[in-house]
Parts: sequence; C-alpha cells; structure tokens
Amino acid sequence: MTDPKQAALDYHSHPIPGKLSIELTKPTTSAKHLALAYSPGVAEPCREIAKDPENAYLYTGKGNLVAVISDGTAILGLGNLGPLASKPVMEGKGVLFKKFAGINSVDIEVDAESPQAFIDTVARIADTWGGINLEDIKAPECFEIERALVERCSIPVFHDDQHGTAIVTAAGMLNALDIAGKSLDSARIVCLGAGAAAIACMKLLVACGARAENIFMLDRKGVIHSGREDLNQYKAMFATETERRTLDDAIDGADVFVGLSGPNLLSPEQLKTMAPNPVVFACSNPDPEIHPTDAKAARDDVIIATGRSDFPNQVNNVLGFPFIFRGALDVRATGINEEMKVAAVHALKDLAREPVTEEVLKAYDIDHLEFGRGYIIPTPLDSRLLDRVSSAVAQAAVDTGVARKPYPAHYPLTSVDGVYGG
Amino acid sequence: MTDPKQAALDYHSHPIPGKLSIELTKPTTSAKHLALAYSPGVAEPCREIAKDPENAYLYTGKGNLVAVISDGTAILGLGNLGPLASKPVMEGKGVLFKKFAGINSVDIEVDAESPQAFIDTVARIADTWGGINLEDIKAPECFEIERALVERCSIPVFHDDQHGTAIVTAAGMLNALDIAGKSLDSARIVCLGAGAAAIACMKLLVACGARAENIFMLDRKGVIHSGREDLNQYKAMFATETERRTLDDAIDGADVFVGLSGPNLLSPEQLKTMAPNPVVFACSNPDPEIHPTDAKAARDDVIIATGRSDFPNQVNNVLGFPFIFRGALDVRATGINEEMKVAAVHALKDLAREPVTEEVLKAYDIDHLEFGRGYIIPTPLDSRLLDRVSSAVAQAAVDTGVARKPYPAHYPLTSVDGVYGG
Repeated sequence: MTDPKQAALDYHSHPIPGKLSIELTKPTTSAKHLALAYSPGVAEPCREIAKDPENAYLYTGKGNLVAVISDGTAILGLGNLGPLASKPVMEGKGVLFKKFAGINSVDIEVDAESPQAFIDTVARIADTWGGINLEDIKAPECFEIERALVERCSIPVFHDDQHGTAIVTAAGMLNALDIAGKSLDSARIVCLGAGAAAIACMKLLVACGARAENIFMLDRKGVIHSGREDLNQYKAMFATETERRTLDDAIDGADVFVGLSGPNLLSPEQLKTMAPNPVVFACSNPDPEIHPTDAKAARDDVIIATGRSDFPNQVNNVLGFPFIFRGALDVRATGINEEMKVAAVHALKDLAREPVTEEVLKAYDIDHLEFGRGYIIPTPLDSRLLDRVSSAVAQAAVDTGVARKPYPAHYPLTSVDGVYGG
Repeated sequence: MTDPKQAALDYHSHPIPGKLSIELTKPTTSAKHLALAYSPGVAEPCREIAKDPENAYLYTGKGNLVAVISDGTAILGLGNLGPLASKPVMEGKGVLFKKFAGINSVDIEVDAESPQAFIDTVARIADTWGGINLEDIKAPECFEIERALVERCSIPVFHDDQHGTAIVTAAGMLNALDIAGKSLDSARIVCLGAGAAAIACMKLLVACGARAENIFMLDRKGVIHSGREDLNQYKAMFATETERRTLDDAIDGADVFVGLSGPNLLSPEQLKTMAPNPVVFACSNPDPEIHPTDAKAARDDVIIATGRSDFPNQVNNVLGFPFIFRGALDVRATGINEEMKVAAVHALKDLAREPVTEEVLKAYDIDHLEFGRGYIIPTPLDSRLLDRVSSAVAQAAVDTGVARKPYPAHYPLTSVDGVYGG
C-alpha cells in the first residue's frame, strides 16, 4: 500500500504541478478569432463596461468567478504556516467549486502586515470577481476582516470556515436533535473551542432557534463565563452566568457537544455524563475530540458526527459553499445574508430526510442508507445537493431583496454540465 | 456582413460570458480523489511548502501561472476607463498566454487610490503567482509602479506595454535598418509620443546600439529638449541639445520615425523630408500616424510597419510576452533583465530572416513571403516563435545568473501541448 503522504504529494506534483489550469472557452484558431479575443475586438466590451459596470457580467468571466483568499494563518488543522503554504488548500477549494458547482475560482494568498492591510488589499481588487470566499484566516482577525470586506464590497464575501461549517453543522444538528426527540430551543449545548468556526456555529444555531443562555462555550482556559475579563468581543457574546468552569462541569447533563478544538479532548467518561441520546459533533480533523468507535463503546444512545469521511455523518463544508455561491451568483446577490444561510441549513436538513438515491449507494459502495442516527447529513456525492441548496439560497436572496437578477430561469439545476460552460 | 462591434460583443458574451474557464487537471471522480485534492490530502503539500517555499513550484500551479494586472488607466487606445472596464483586455491577454505559450494566467483589476496603494496591493499578493504582467497602466505612474514591484517581488514583473512593445519594435527596427543599408548606431531617430511605450522603446533601442543624442522624442508640446523645464525624470532622459522644436523640424533628414502617439500625426509631406529609405513604425492603433497606403504613395522607398494585422509588418506584442514569460518561468528566473530582453529582440530579428514555413503561408492564405521591406518581423502564427524566443530568454537568464533552475531539459520546445498540462 502506498504511503498516504506520498500519494498526496504525487497527486499534487504529477504529471504536472497543481490541480487547476486555465482553458479557453471561445474559438482561437484563426487570426480573425484572435482579433475578436484581443485587439481590436476587446475595445467594444471595454466601452460597454465603462458605460455600465453591470456589463462586466455579460462580457467577462466575472459572474462565474470566485476568489478563494487566505493569509494562511489558520490552515486546516495545521495552524499558521504563512500565505504561500496555504496555496494547496486554496487550489483544492477551487477544485471543489468547479467539480460541484461549475464555478471558476482563483486563489489569492495575501501576505499582509495587519488585518487592515489585508482588508485594503482585497477591497482594491475585489471587483475582479463575482464573489469572495475567505479561507483559513485565524480568529479574531477573521471577524473584523470579513465585516469590513462585506461593508466595502458589492459582491458576496463569505468566510467559509465560519459560515460553511456553521451551515452544515446546523443542518445535521437539527436532524440529530429530532432523532433524539429533542428540540434546539431547549437543548443544552457545550461548544469546545472558541475559534472562528465555533463562534459562527453557535451564532447560526441561535439564529435557528437555540438559546444563547443554554450554550456553554469553552476556550483553552475553560468555560467562557461572565466573570472572565480576558475575552475579546466575539467570545464575550457567549459569556454565560454560570458557576461551571471546566469541561467536566459543562458537559454534565448536556444534550449536545460540538467540538471544534483538537483531538481526544472529550473522554468516554465525560460523554457518559451527558443527557440521554446525546448529540456529539466531534469535528476536529483528522482526529476528532472523541473517536466514533470509543463513543459508541461508551454509550450506544449517542448520535455522533465527525469531520471524517471514513465514518457516518461527515460534517463536510463541501456540502455548503459550492452551492451557496452557485445560488448567490445566479441571482447576482450583493451578499450572503442570514436568511440565505438559514435557507441552506434547511435545504441540507430536508435532503437528508429524503430517500437516498441509487447514485449515492453506488458512489459509496453500500446497500442501504436511510435517515436516522447513522445518516443525519447528506453525502457529498449526492447530486441533488446542487439544485436543493442553490435554489434555496437563490430564492432567499430574491425574497430578502439582495438579488440583482430574478430567480434563475434555468433552475431547477440538475447539472452544471454545459450550463455554465467550460 | 456582421457589424464588427456586434461581432466582438457576441464573441465575448455567447454562449457564455468571457473567454476563459478554470479546469481540473487531476482526477476527481471518486471520494478517494477528492480526499487527495482537498482534505486530508492537501496537508502534506502545505507542510512541504512551509518547510521550503520553493516547493510551491512542485505542488501547486504557481510555476506556470502569471497574473495580468491593470488599473485600467491606459486601456489600449481607449485611455482611462477604470479598472473594471479593462477586464476584457486582461482576459484577452490570458487567452494569448495560454494559446501561444501554454501559460495559465489570471487577471487582477486594481482600484487603487495612489501608485503606492497599487504597489502595496500587488506586492502583498505577488507570491500567489510565478510572474506578473503589468498592463495598461498610464505613464509616468507605470514607471514607479514597475520599479517598486521589481524590487519587492522575487518573481518576474514585466510591464508589457513598455517592454513587450519595445522588444518587438527593436527586432523589426534592426531588420528594417539593415534592409535600408543603415545601422542603429548612426541612425537619426524621431519618436513621436513620450508615454510608457515610447520611453521603453527608445531605452531598448539605446541598449541595442542606438545613440541617445541621435533621438528626438516629442510629446504634445513638441521636441523634448534640454531647455524644457516641464519634463518628468523619464522624459528628461531623452532631452537633447537642439534648436529643433516641432515635428517638422525633427523629421527633416531623419532615418527613422517611431510613432506611439495618435492617428494621422505624420503627414506625407513630412515623410517626404526624411532621409532615403526611411523607416516608419506608425504604431498608433487602430489608426496609425500615417496610413501605409498614403506612405507608399508619398515615396516608394519607405519601409513601414504598423500595429495593424491587415498590413505587412505588424508590430504585435503577442510576438513577445508569451514566449518571454515562457522562458523566464521555465528557468524560474527572478526577473526579466535587459539581457533577456535583448536576447528576445535578436531571436525575433533572426527568425524573420529565415525562410517562411508552409504553415505560415497557409495561415495567412498567401503564396510567398520573404525577408525584405514587406516582411521584417515574424508573424504571430509562426509556431517557431515558441522555441526561438523562449530558449533565447531562458539562456540569457541562465547566463546572467537570474535563473534558479538550469536551462530546461525539455527544450527545444516545439509545442506546448502536453508539456505544461491542461
């Protein structure tokens, strides 16, 4: 068996470096074609865009082009390796954008001396694209960066580590709680981790019905409570009035555990103190806060999801971002608002409740899969995701007045082949 | 017959907007592939790049990726239409990079409040790519922008409007003077126009042997002479001790006219006052300083080149930039120095002296073409350009110590198909 590390290096380096190329979508075989593609042909589209910037969507690739932008300060589980080292991730995101949603994407690695420098840099070049996917930027800087760019840019700006993770987590959570016979508005939730993803997840769960006072969030120093004076404004939103200080204290009797922290931080003993039918989202990757096998061994009423593809219930951002951007681009939304995120949550939640298709069974080489403890979130290779999520997001954009185009005439969207070209 | 403006708009908008797409170069059909392309597979290349930034050339697309960057302040002959309106040109450049040299390119439109803001923005994101092609940035800002970016970036930064134009002009000029029985070191040269391209052309002609004191450069106010006090430092380099003040004064007895100004600014009467066998490069586009038909009518000993594809001797940047970057990327050059530019000049000059291939005759639907007054520069559809220019530039980079890789083992380069993927 090939060493998996070597296999990954080989995949990235052979036969050519990287994973993406630029290809031509128009004929270029004759001198006449080239005169249309470049001089003198480009002059007319330039003039039209100068007259009305919206014409850029008609005569250039802008409308189907998303930038994946990082400073490399929070790369996957690897931490701060700097901008250039994040490039394989950003190009990987480009692979997923294209493969799942027919979206062209380019990566930009930013070496900025401050969050303000990052913001200024991206704001000055933002008009190049139809949308911006921020990626792997550490907290708390990512919050200010996203806020400022959303304000300064007229295109959707979406920090996937926050909102993509939150959307997929919330969809799975709603299903898991339903199976557990509980509801979000009364669930007691422990969130281990207080980074970008954790804060976004808890904010979206609140938007979906959870109560902030029922959430215990923990950072490296323990429970985030109202007596602490070391909290930034983002953590402070989740400071609760409580005497609980440790994970042992917090987890006792909890209905839900969400882990966005590190490997093996939830012990089987701690799991045993949770309420009946506990819902555990152990999303640290590749090693979860508790291994699914250990969790099941500790108590068989647990409903567990992880970030891993080799266990059921994978919380995988690819269920979200390609289709969220697809829907947003297709109605030329000016941004991705809360309603669009919640619409994506419900689309994902509802799809998991539908019968699984033959296609999915075949892709995963299984005989059977149905809604329940082992299947609370759709699988990435379910081709229905494209239509369900994109159309829900597009509709929400239209309904909330952020769409600059009507609901797409080419929906329902059963495939991207031939629809978006290339 | 279709209206050419409408044909250009149709080409850019149908069946999909724009001219480029992103495509996948690695298999992505199975869950296993996706695990290599994204999580967890990307972790290993990230770690390798963190260890040594040079590994980015091995595991990402950086080494074959050039950014085409503009602020839209000097778009073709259209002037300052702003960043977004320049996008069709930048995407068009991407078409040419791919088509002629197998180079992937992305466009970046920068909306910067000052040259310094432009410089800071580009410098912070420069490491994303293997090279930067600056485009359509007005003078004199373009000089400072290029100088600062060359200094701050470890990859080639090349302002094509300056150096690409200069290289192709110099190649044609050397041949034209040879045919005229003259030499560059004694030629009296008039340059009408004092923008980025004009200054770069004259600088490169000097590097190739012309004497600065033999050059009269003219801006809107007339001859640039040592008595003028309104000159920026770039024009001042070409201020001559002379009593001549107007184009009439300057052109009288001149061997060479280079026009990088505007339509119909050289009259047949002025042409008639030039020395025998005058060399006229009337490069204003689409309407030259003097129409070739009018020039020939005024005197039949004229050797004339223009920017137009419908007349002989087209001074076309596409003869240069794709291959210059190809050579620079292939040896991982840290920059494009004077020696590399001069090497490109001589490669182009020499190629025009070789017998024309059947391929070229066929592409232009002609029976015969040979070195002489009507053929002083190679044609864009000559496939030998790829090898001749790239190898000359690569060799010059190696010889001058700016190459970080040896002369490419895969040269001579007869085609890009399958060599650079995509």
